[in-house]
Amino acid sequence: MNKLAIGVDLGGSNIKAGIVDAQGKILRDASIPAEAHQGPTHVLDQITKSIHYLLDGFSNGPKEFIGIGVGSPGSVDLDGGTVKYPPNFPGWTVVRLGESLEKEFALHVEVDNDANAAAVGEAKFGAGVGHKDFIMVTLGTGVGGGLILDGKLYRGPFGGAGELGHMTIDHNGPLCNCGNRGCVEAYVGARYLTQRAVEKVHTNPKSKILQLVKNDPTRIDPKIVSLAAQEGDATALDVLSETGKYLGIGLASVVNLLDVRLIIIGGGIARAGRPLFDAVKESVKNHVLKPMTDGLEVLPAK
Amino acid sequence: MNKLAIGVDLGGSNIKAGIVDAQGKILRDASIPAEAHQGPTHVLDQITKSIHYLLDGFSNGPKEFIGIGVGSPGSVDLDGGTVKYPPNFPGWTVVRLGESLEKEFALHVEVDNDANAAAVGEAKFGAGVGHKDFIMVTLGTGVGGGLILDGKLYRGPFGGAGELGHMTIDHNGPLCNCGNRGCVEAYVGARYLTQRAVEKVHTNPKSKILQLVKNDPTRIDPKIVSLAAQEGDATALDVLSETGKYLGIGLASVVNLLDVRLIIIGGGIARAGRPLFDAVKESVKNHVLKPMTDGLEVLPAK
Repeated sequence: MNKLAIGVDLGGSNIKAGIVDAQGKILRDASIPAEAHQGPTHVLDQITKSIHYLLDGFSNGPKEFIGIGVGSPGSVDLDGGTVKYPPNFPGWTVVRLGESLEKEFALHVEVDNDANAAAVGEAKFGAGVGHKDFIMVTLGTGVGGGLILDGKLYRGPFGGAGELGHMTIDHNGPLCNCGNRGCVEAYVGARYLTQRAVEKVHTNPKSKILQLVKNDPTRIDPKIVSLAAQEGDATALDVLSETGKYLGIGLASVVNLLDVRLIIIGGGIARAGRPLFDAVKESVKNHVLKPMTDGLEVLPAK
Repeated sequence: MNKLAIGVDLGGSNIKAGIVDAQGKILRDASIPAEAHQGPTHVLDQITKSIHYLLDGFSNGPKEFIGIGVGSPGSVDLDGGTVKYPPNFPGWTVVRLGESLEKEFALHVEVDNDANAAAVGEAKFGAGVGHKDFIMVTLGTGVGGGLILDGKLYRGPFGGAGELGHMTIDHNGPLCNCGNRGCVEAYVGARYLTQRAVEKVHTNPKSKILQLVKNDPTRIDPKIVSLAAQEGDATALDVLSETGKYLGIGLASVVNLLDVRLIIIGGGIARAGRPLFDAVKESVKNHVLKPMTDGLEVLPAK
């Protein structure tokens, strides 16, 4: 009997879901908008819809579904199913995501913080293989973090560890979606990065960014900035190098605190590649205490 | 035979040393200025002098010295003897403190970061008893940190973990002794706190602070500010509440990252008591993600 599982990545913009086999091969996948602004009940409906879509008419010989795994933003309780106050999901307080999905599908459900899930993935199959300690960063709508310390995922005594996106790098800085000022996310999260790009093309109207969106600045997003940077556009490179600098300041605080010297960065914006990674590395080096610069590495997620 | 040990606390201002017995009782102690500005060789001489002072003519029946323990600022290698780049010690790069003292006294020497030593002390005998996870903060010339995670001191893979004094809370902020801008220490360290007090008494000439130093602002130090605050002086209370606010912003980043909800604060300025602790707690609460406010505690070290 073929043992299969369902994986769901709940993002601030999209829900991605897939059926995977025991070797990690994706047999079928789907992506639908999260429509987070419509509140938790709607997002739950969207998740349910995406899973039904995967299952409907799926036939792959004799099979058994062993469970559903969900990567979610926000703090996830150690019970593996309760999501608390994800900052980019308006109206969410405490949502029993695991329980709801178990009722709907009669399958075992495990929910974990999305960046924690990414950290475990990188440790087992990715850029973290062979490393006992690293800091995982996920760049998307929000900025998530996961900590692999001494070979294990560090969840903290209450399960909410890793929220490096909400470390303060300027207590007088721009307002973050979490309600505070100057969080890492308020410089590096998708909407803030986009906003900076929109401002910059205003004074650089010849930027490749504007060409890629056919002169409609409302269509600018991190992917567009990445693309323009890959084509050498100075404005896009400028946005990425600023983003890297700010992210690096936050990550330097993590390195100063934990003395972990490997950083792995994943998520959409990370596809921007070298311009971003070089800027992050330089900024971390400039902001950590001298002994911590030894052997410092910043790698893209696999 | 009475088994005794020598303990040394190397601070940015003073070296404190003592002979202790197996029950932790201090039998003899000494405090001499560190005179850090005169460089590493001189500080080593001062440490040696303080230990010789303790030993000279010390007689307490038959006894055996089992070793010397040193709490030092800066990163201390996992070898237990090499101190690296302590930010408040001009001219120190890599100093083999353990080795030098072993040669001089022919005793086993263990060096650890001072805040790590304080964390272990609080875990075994102090405010951390019964708690498996807490953040230790030491407020002095510098701002140190130690992490007790899951019942053990967390040193990180290279031994330098805990440097929360050099986490950035404003990347455009005041210059810190480490060379960066806006570190927690650049708001909360003794010299910066003193500086703020000096500025404030300038516009509040009736402050108790000035009375306590007989109108000589160059004599203001954190102890004076504490004293004035205890007598209800508004300017002193203002300095402490600002200090608490800034420290709280940095500690909130630690809580967001590690989801540890007990903070223990020790060191000279911590003696200021409630006005400081209330401000720290309020600021941490205001700056952590919502789920982390549950059960958050800020306690004075014992």
